[in-house]
Amino acid sequence: MPNLSERIKNMQASPIRKLAPLAEKAKKEGKKVYHLNIGQPDIETPQIFYDTIKSFNNPVLAYTGSQGIPELINSYIRYYKEWNIDFEEDEIIVTNGGSEAILFALMAVCDYGDNIVIPEPFYTNYNGFSQIAGVNVSPFLTKAEDGFHLPKKEEIVKAINDKTKAILISNPGNPTGVVYTKDEIRLIADIAKEYDLYIIADEVYREFVYDNLEYTSFMHMKDILDRVILVDSISKRYSACGARIGLIASKNKELMKNVLKLAQSRLCSPTIEQIGAAKLIETPKEYLEKVKEEYQRRRDVVYEALSKIEGVICKKPTGAFYVIAKLPIKDAEDFVKWLLTDYSVDNETIMLAPADGFYATEGLGKDEVRISYCINIDALKKAMNIFEKGLIEYKKQKGC
Amino acid sequence: MPNLSERIKNMQASPIRKLAPLAEKAKKEGKKVYHLNIGQPDIETPQIFYDTIKSFNNPVLAYTGSQGIPELINSYIRYYKEWNIDFEEDEIIVTNGGSEAILFALMAVCDYGDNIVIPEPFYTNYNGFSQIAGVNVSPFLTKAEDGFHLPKKEEIVKAINDKTKAILISNPGNPTGVVYTKDEIRLIADIAKEYDLYIIADEVYREFVYDNLEYTSFMHMKDILDRVILVDSISKRYSACGARIGLIASKNKELMKNVLKLAQSRLCSPTIEQIGAAKLIETPKEYLEKVKEEYQRRRDVVYEALSKIEGVICKKPTGAFYVIAKLPIKDAEDFVKWLLTDYSVDNETIMLAPADGFYATEGLGKDEVRISYCINIDALKKAMNIFEKGLIEYKKQKGC
Repeated sequence: MPNLSERIKNMQASPIRKLAPLAEKAKKEGKKVYHLNIGQPDIETPQIFYDTIKSFNNPVLAYTGSQGIPELINSYIRYYKEWNIDFEEDEIIVTNGGSEAILFALMAVCDYGDNIVIPEPFYTNYNGFSQIAGVNVSPFLTKAEDGFHLPKKEEIVKAINDKTKAILISNPGNPTGVVYTKDEIRLIADIAKEYDLYIIADEVYREFVYDNLEYTSFMHMKDILDRVILVDSISKRYSACGARIGLIASKNKELMKNVLKLAQSRLCSPTIEQIGAAKLIETPKEYLEKVKEEYQRRRDVVYEALSKIEGVICKKPTGAFYVIAKLPIKDAEDFVKWLLTDYSVDNETIMLAPADGFYATEGLGKDEVRISYCINIDALKKAMNIFEKGLIEYKKQKGC
Repeated sequence: MPNLSERIKNMQASPIRKLAPLAEKAKKEGKKVYHLNIGQPDIETPQIFYDTIKSFNNPVLAYTGSQGIPELINSYIRYYKEWNIDFEEDEIIVTNGGSEAILFALMAVCDYGDNIVIPEPFYTNYNGFSQIAGVNVSPFLTKAEDGFHLPKKEEIVKAINDKTKAILISNPGNPTGVVYTKDEIRLIADIAKEYDLYIIADEVYREFVYDNLEYTSFMHMKDILDRVILVDSISKRYSACGARIGLIASKNKELMKNVLKLAQSRLCSPTIEQIGAAKLIETPKEYLEKVKEEYQRRRDVVYEALSKIEGVICKKPTGAFYVIAKLPIKDAEDFVKWLLTDYSVDNETIMLAPADGFYATEGLGKDEVRISYCINIDALKKAMNIFEKGLIEYKKQKGC
């Protein structure tokens, strides 16, 4: 039998999903498991999405154009206007979720062996897309102690070399929950200019910024717009992950003309989901407001619980629905497994994501976990109680 | 501004779609254009698909598992049983159309710089996927004079070298309409064994085989099943191209375990379309029978028209809904453009696909066009009349 490719063998299994069998086993044994490991919102998808697809009555479920349906593209244009971001029709291409948008962005600016600079820890699938695109990840470190804000410029530019084509950055950050300040966005923009790089801006959590903080998009940096490739998605914003509808957008029309060739090769994004997504723009503003308030309350529950626990290092996150906590233990993955296999409170336990899978640098993140707060407040309180008691018990048992 | 990647700059625009602006212009000028250039079926999608998605009422449109929903995987298993093909649950992964399945297959067996052997002419997007995967296409030639059946073994194996990892073959063939005989499938199977290669079998047109011919799948070659990677899709079978639901399947479980990592990186295929697709298995058998009869009648209309035209070389195709015709002219692309810009019969004209975009070898296919018969019989008769008269007129005007 011929070998499989090196690139597929070298891909890591999802750190978020790889421990799923242990959770399944716990459930089979009758334990309730609170999932703090996945970013699947529990908020209801706006009804207008379902109403729209229910009234779809074309006799033939045909391909759409590769760029996406005009109604959806125009709804995106209207959406961005509210954020003071101007796009024209030929500057947006609909993608199969934010996932495909990231892959297209990497393909468009990198050849095999090129690299991209990313602050670590970062969204683990950036590794997968890089592997698929044959691109290397050159990370620079951000730390729990700093709330995962950017380090000094000299630390960032150390990661850049002559093979670097872009800086990939998510803001608000998954898995850190950081929201970069305007000065930080400006710093990255200046570095991109100085080193002649693209910026791949993953802004899928734009609507999830708490404490009335100001949000700065890379699309607000007017002097570098031809360098910015925006990656976005309706998945989190409208709690519609299963629609797999995202977009790639850029004011750099030459780039978008080329990305369209990638889009043509896979024909189109799903038709019915595009039609439903195009109507989401009509969702009342209160929907997004209420969702944000709900997540902010959850963030408070998680952060308060964490800040009470001795030895846990964690600054208050201000965006997305994740937090990374540094724990006073050596092996966070062992702790995560132990919670599923050996521990429970009233026959309930929790599942976390070990954070080392979010780092590119071997050995980092071993004492950290990512907590996702996509469950309701009551469940979250119980889950964080299990977290606290479990950590104390684990330390006692392991003698640390 | 940093350069775009070489790989994206080198991608060709879709030969099927690149002349679309000329067709748009003709329509704006009031001409009716019959589209013989695209493989978008006009047959109605089974009602059960729409009924199913209408009754979907989960409040949250969530991700599915990366492998796809069990209902859909099990419906595929049942479908293949009818074709005497046995799959188990962990041998199938749902993909975003056949497109993603091809990309996954290439990624799984090829590293950068490896190559795949393909009979040319071939589905043009194989070029796009190869470009994305960093894989070279090593073609061997099949000819209009032979009805695009396989050449002798020595011609095929000439295309194989030490970088070759797989043979990619579509059966029935797009763009040729060829259906390979059992002996031909056996020949490819034997070559794969002898040269230690995978076979990527694109069988999305399996249901479209005419004249009561027997269909042989690579999955029927029991001695090479661990080498076969099946690519399939519901797009053509159920006239549901816009659903973007396909699959990759293989009895090689180690391969499928690795492909799952690729699938995890893009999270999942669209949820609602998966749910609708899972019910398509319940479509009455008469649906597929009637669809096949309809296409066979259309094939007859196209073939009879072509066989009457002096100088046109074309064997009767027996599958899919395409035919490649070799024309007695030098520049088929010029003819295709001329039909849109300079010709009409009763203010009606046709759009064809120039065939050179379906060849990897520079210079081949310049005198060929691909005709797709996805319009109804009456329209098709009118279109073929325009084809015949147009060709005669074009030859007269161009003096050939």
